[in-house]
Amino acid sequence: MATLIHEEDLDAIALGGAFLGTGGGGDPYIGKLMAREAIRRHGPVTLLGADEVADEALCISVFMMGAPTVMVEKLPSGAEILKALAELEQFLGRKADALICVEAGGLNSTIPFMVAASTGLPLIDGDGMGRAFPELQMVSFTLHGLAATPMVLADDKGNSALFSAISNLWTEKMARSVTIEMGGAALVAAYPMPGAEMKTALLHGTMTQIRKIGETIQEARNSARHAGSALRDTLGGTHLFTGRVIDVERKTIGGFARGKLTLRGVERFAGQQFIVHFQNEFLLAEDETGKTVWATPDLICALDADLGLPVTTEQMRYGLMVEFTGLAADPQWRTPEGLALAGPGYFGYGGPSQERIPV
Amino acid sequence: MATLIHEEDLDAIALGGAFLGTGGGGDPYIGKLMAREAIRRHGPVTLLGADEVADEALCISVFMMGAPTVMVEKLPSGAEILKALAELEQFLGRKADALICVEAGGLNSTIPFMVAASTGLPLIDGDGMGRAFPELQMVSFTLHGLAATPMVLADDKGNSALFSAISNLWTEKMARSVTIEMGGAALVAAYPMPGAEMKTALLHGTMTQIRKIGETIQEARNSARHAGSALRDTLGGTHLFTGRVIDVERKTIGGFARGKLTLRGVERFAGQQFIVHFQNEFLLAEDETGKTVWATPDLICALDADLGLPVTTEQMRYGLMVEFTGLAADPQWRTPEGLALAGPGYFGYGGPSQERIPV
Repeated sequence: MATLIHEEDLDAIALGGAFLGTGGGGDPYIGKLMAREAIRRHGPVTLLGADEVADEALCISVFMMGAPTVMVEKLPSGAEILKALAELEQFLGRKADALICVEAGGLNSTIPFMVAASTGLPLIDGDGMGRAFPELQMVSFTLHGLAATPMVLADDKGNSALFSAISNLWTEKMARSVTIEMGGAALVAAYPMPGAEMKTALLHGTMTQIRKIGETIQEARNSARHAGSALRDTLGGTHLFTGRVIDVERKTIGGFARGKLTLRGVERFAGQQFIVHFQNEFLLAEDETGKTVWATPDLICALDADLGLPVTTEQMRYGLMVEFTGLAADPQWRTPEGLALAGPGYFGYGGPSQERIPV
Repeated sequence: MATLIHEEDLDAIALGGAFLGTGGGGDPYIGKLMAREAIRRHGPVTLLGADEVADEALCISVFMMGAPTVMVEKLPSGAEILKALAELEQFLGRKADALICVEAGGLNSTIPFMVAASTGLPLIDGDGMGRAFPELQMVSFTLHGLAATPMVLADDKGNSALFSAISNLWTEKMARSVTIEMGGAALVAAYPMPGAEMKTALLHGTMTQIRKIGETIQEARNSARHAGSALRDTLGGTHLFTGRVIDVERKTIGGFARGKLTLRGVERFAGQQFIVHFQNEFLLAEDETGKTVWATPDLICALDADLGLPVTTEQMRYGLMVEFTGLAADPQWRTPEGLALAGPGYFGYGGPSQERIPV
């Protein structure tokens, strides 16, 4: 059912996107400001259920690519992503009929609302990840054989590149290298697909889900309830651990923010130590013996334990008290194809996701 | 005046291209084989004087981009460059009327003959460098304000990228990074321009010049004459030095073959030592005190002193006896704009080209 998204809905969407973004995809706050401005100027965004989209409709994903550490310093103006979309439409010789979020997390779950408001296009309620992942081929669209290309990448200076590739991994490689040249962040229009294919490949309803997550966080804060518990009650997640950050290693390598956090457990986790590895997103949580606590493709979501608000990887700092919640990924990610695309092995982590030890 | 280029003309063109290529642009031998095959199949190539091209004709440059060290191991099939040209034509909504050599040296002075034969398009007698340079913005076209974009880059696997950029330096940056991802070498169609602008910006007659250089080398070899002397008699160059290679440092960095040669002087240069720095091309020759002997944008051309044949940077090896000839670059390269684009300072070498000490 079509829903209108107004300015006042954006806070919840940004909060939910930050939580489901598993630390990556950039701070949705930036995208929220951009979306708010666009909605004020152009009116509310229509959020369409996937089934309301015509089979022959042209659906296009719009997103930002790059290291979140760069994104927070190099703010997009909004013009770049509209330019990327316009160039892709020009190449296809056809206007888009609807927009898709490539990921239900981080900046990329709010920026599409800006594009939708600015262009008047509806946004589809769903995404390609059900979370955030660091690389552009890590979407359900890839699992359904849909191409990221033709794809346009645009920067803030006026440069752009249109890719055509033999696989989505090749698109990622080419686009990542150009993104690095562009300064570490770029805006993208990609994955053009007809409505019929979108309906099969999309993870449905995730925009509604992040909004609900955001509302749960807001309600918990308003009622002085514990946000982590409230979310786990709603989503059925696992409390992985709560700890204080005692070390952060972070480097921007190969266009990604890579690193690891070391946390000293508190409360019922006192006396334990945990390591959380990230590449833009939190991808692997281990205990002090090196045993996997939770791993990609399943979600490792972080809340500031004092404020009850989501924390992104670039916000992690010494002394912060963080509560980690593990969520199960969409079942598509637990198939052999899904694990090959975004499982721990792809990222060079040892144990398969299945061997995780529930805490 | 239009000239027909037949299979038997290619040897001289490849030899001349290797000499004027100042060690870079890859071994023209590969391009010669490709051009020969195409001429055998499709007939001779029409070499057109720039003034014979209509002002409204669409002229496009075709070339290979990457490190010559990679090019010799990763041979193009010919299909990639035709694909790059076809994609650029499709984007422009118009077929090319004539082809341009981007550089009068190396592989890129022979590959366009293959494209011309295969497509039936005429090749224009001229180029954008009057030599070879390592980066794609280093062309007279840039000095005349012409854009490299829209430009298509294609690889052997079926991937391609179409760039639009705010400057030719930005095109170089984006294209170089994708070329590296593609394995270090890629095929390009770029610098689309109308005939009227081509006539102003082109360095005229360089295809005829490289053919004459090649014929001079052939005649010298046939008459047991010294090729270096014969070339200097014809071209008015300077005998920089002759020496034996006693050290080669070579790395493929940032998509370029970079390094330096150390040579021990022989004959009248006995007792002296020389260093030749290269980035794909020979760019700076110094004596043992660090004084500049010859420097970019002027040409440093190498001949195997025993065989009287051109030597490329990737063919340099310990023990080889090499004779270096210095040629003056086209006057456009000695302007402040030309020096900024391809002078020693751009490459991080100390002394300005003007300070070179004739030996």
